[in-house]
Amino acid sequence: MIRTEETICAPATAGGGAIAIIRVSGVQSITICGKIFFPFDIKINLSDQKGYSIVYGEIRSGDDIIDEVLVSIFRSPHSYTGEDSVEISCHASPYIQQKILELLIANGAAVAFPGEFTQRAFLNGKMDLSQAEAIADLVASESKMSHKIAISQMRGTFSDEISILRADLLHFASLLELELDFGEEDVEFVDRTKLMEIVTRVLMVTEELTSSFSLGNAIKNGVPVVIAGNSNTGKSTLLNRLLSEERAIVSEIPGTTRDAIEDTVVIDEIKYRFIDTAGLRDTSDKIENLGIKKTHEKIGIATVVLLVCDITDGVEAVTASVNRLRKQVRGEQKKLIILVNKTDIGFSGGNIKILDSVSPGQGEILLFISAKTGEGIDKLKESLGRVISRDKLLSENVIITNIRHYEALLQVKESLKRVREGLEDQLQEDLIAIDIRQAIHYLGEITGEITNDEILGNIFRNFCIGK
Amino acid sequence: MIRTEETICAPATAGGGAIAIIRVSGVQSITICGKIFFPFDIKINLSDQKGYSIVYGEIRSGDDIIDEVLVSIFRSPHSYTGEDSVEISCHASPYIQQKILELLIANGAAVAFPGEFTQRAFLNGKMDLSQAEAIADLVASESKMSHKIAISQMRGTFSDEISILRADLLHFASLLELELDFGEEDVEFVDRTKLMEIVTRVLMVTEELTSSFSLGNAIKNGVPVVIAGNSNTGKSTLLNRLLSEERAIVSEIPGTTRDAIEDTVVIDEIKYRFIDTAGLRDTSDKIENLGIKKTHEKIGIATVVLLVCDITDGVEAVTASVNRLRKQVRGEQKKLIILVNKTDIGFSGGNIKILDSVSPGQGEILLFISAKTGEGIDKLKESLGRVISRDKLLSENVIITNIRHYEALLQVKESLKRVREGLEDQLQEDLIAIDIRQAIHYLGEITGEITNDEILGNIFRNFCIGK
Repeated sequence: MIRTEETICAPATAGGGAIAIIRVSGVQSITICGKIFFPFDIKINLSDQKGYSIVYGEIRSGDDIIDEVLVSIFRSPHSYTGEDSVEISCHASPYIQQKILELLIANGAAVAFPGEFTQRAFLNGKMDLSQAEAIADLVASESKMSHKIAISQMRGTFSDEISILRADLLHFASLLELELDFGEEDVEFVDRTKLMEIVTRVLMVTEELTSSFSLGNAIKNGVPVVIAGNSNTGKSTLLNRLLSEERAIVSEIPGTTRDAIEDTVVIDEIKYRFIDTAGLRDTSDKIENLGIKKTHEKIGIATVVLLVCDITDGVEAVTASVNRLRKQVRGEQKKLIILVNKTDIGFSGGNIKILDSVSPGQGEILLFISAKTGEGIDKLKESLGRVISRDKLLSENVIITNIRHYEALLQVKESLKRVREGLEDQLQEDLIAIDIRQAIHYLGEITGEITNDEILGNIFRNFCIGK
Repeated sequence: MIRTEETICAPATAGGGAIAIIRVSGVQSITICGKIFFPFDIKINLSDQKGYSIVYGEIRSGDDIIDEVLVSIFRSPHSYTGEDSVEISCHASPYIQQKILELLIANGAAVAFPGEFTQRAFLNGKMDLSQAEAIADLVASESKMSHKIAISQMRGTFSDEISILRADLLHFASLLELELDFGEEDVEFVDRTKLMEIVTRVLMVTEELTSSFSLGNAIKNGVPVVIAGNSNTGKSTLLNRLLSEERAIVSEIPGTTRDAIEDTVVIDEIKYRFIDTAGLRDTSDKIENLGIKKTHEKIGIATVVLLVCDITDGVEAVTASVNRLRKQVRGEQKKLIILVNKTDIGFSGGNIKILDSVSPGQGEILLFISAKTGEGIDKLKESLGRVISRDKLLSENVIITNIRHYEALLQVKESLKRVREGLEDQLQEDLIAIDIRQAIHYLGEITGEITNDEILGNIFRNFCIGK
């Protein structure tokens, strides 16, 4: 639902903390705030205030003082939404926030839908659709890598790339359509080889973009790493070590540790999502099949499989464990990191024997570690980084992380493939033009040059309130 | 630990939400921010910016863009702390917040201790100690009543009252000490009756304040209400009804519903804390004593006891249940609200019989309700309000909610009682003067005119980070 006449309000910060921000945007925002906010400096009139200025005063409800607040004024078009906007910075009490919202509503404001501020920014031309989506990704970003992608998308790198592709295709289409106008005269304005070149180039870039999605998605949501291994091989100790080494300042502040219950860890700027496999622990015949099935499912979504073995179990047990897992991942394109744990206890001369017996092959890495003392953990981190080509990632520019973009690009790819075939088969211009228009349409959907209420609804529904 | 040379920084908002605020305060705050923040308008130089102005730009770490942010500038003494201060309004990503904090620290800022911003505000004379404490109460306030007390305390109503008492006593003390100087000449400058009047008046106010504490504390933390009653009498239905009717806008926004798992409800501007008593349910002989003991403990801390009975159990069962509870609360000063539930099922003519048989006495209220349909719930709310003298509360000015103030006032009271006795027994001036000085000392501790590191440490340790 799109409404632009209303002045909207919502809290922009989460519960807790010391300060809360309530956002107000719309034509009436300064007028409405002026009715409930009274500057301590009585010479100040809110409606005379310039943009980018702050006023100190109090919010009142009748005779009751609700809070002493700072009010930031933004004037259209120089605001997030492009409209006149006000940000009220109050004490983060649930009661105060509620009361201020009630007062704003009583004076004519409406409660904002999730993402409505950003939707207005889009509708007012402050950003295109993929940039708006990048804001949500930016807010959610937890690792340097996901942050880097979101920032780059917010700044328009991806939009620019899409715009270039679209411009190329529009040029192509206009030439084709010119030919169509002169259809009966059988004029050929454009060199077909030239057209083929353009399509091939756009198709190549589109393919690069779509193929970056699985990685982009993994970076955004965490690279999925399955941890396999028998009980008591030290899986928890390993996770705890990885977790404790990577604890950040922010995560020690109450309210920011919500992910701590998930086993996600940011290592060297990339987020990993560790998935435990209970399956491998269940070896009683009765449920073995079920266990193997579950493990298979989990391995199915993993990029990396970490197998934790206990060195004190000896050469044969370790080798058996590795071979069992090899059987399970057979046919799957997975990186396998074998961790022979508990080197602090270890047994002398065992390492070489294990290495010989396990004999790690293509796509496999074997490391001796002690989760307890930390030995070998740096090598493990390095190996994880190498597995997902960390260095290559850092240098690359555009990576797709958004499934909507991915799906639109798949449509672009299909359309362009048909265009290429059409050119090869020397199809009529009008048939080729249909496919080229379709490719242009889907590219336009990504940046929002072509859009509708349904697309907008789907995108902004997933935003948080106040964004 | 008090340090005032350092420039400090901390996030002021909780995790989650759309926007996060990072606070920086201290002599170097604008300089430090200038090293990591780059205005989009290159003509702007942060160190030339006036107070109460906002600048739009980006935070950079080397070549990496960390975020596009708004920076609010405050100039000493016109800031919360009284120092030069900066508030950075960034996207609420954990990664971004962490990175900005890291950059601030790398450029010379220190991470703030909990409450350090408010501590500085106190040390710089922006507020006295009881006002500083009111800020923490304000942030935590969840009901109109606790909010009203905190706002009034923040605005200095309580401090003013304490200051008047202290001024009276100081006047008193100076007269006494004047007499002491002329001690050997046996001069009596002041009428002893007059002195007695002052002491009696201050003592009376002190006693009013201390006696307001149990109520003030209940308002701050929720008025404790024990819910008793057998299983299946509808206790949960009742709680759910009270909870659902009082749901607020803010509590529907993610991140602000943290109290939902506790059974606290704000009814007519007062917060109630509902405490379930499992004890009454356990009637097997073996553990009956233990159950009764536990119920006793819970009733001990309650202001109100709600007894939920099932009307369909009949007159005798309801009366027995009431009598059992009466036995348990005997000797305790508790309000008892008897709720005869399930009037939607009911039995005809039963109400009068029950009323006759139970025969509610002094301090008891009997209500027929249906937690399911909502019948009688309004009356229950009214009764709760009457029990804790809601109207009287709303008109009263100063209520003590802080245990530190309470304890200091108890000391004041003790000292003044000794002064009064001294005057009655015509003790020597120097002995009376000791006690009067002690009373003055404790009053000064409340507002912070007299303080030390330990007191400050205890107070600000309980603040949240960023406040």
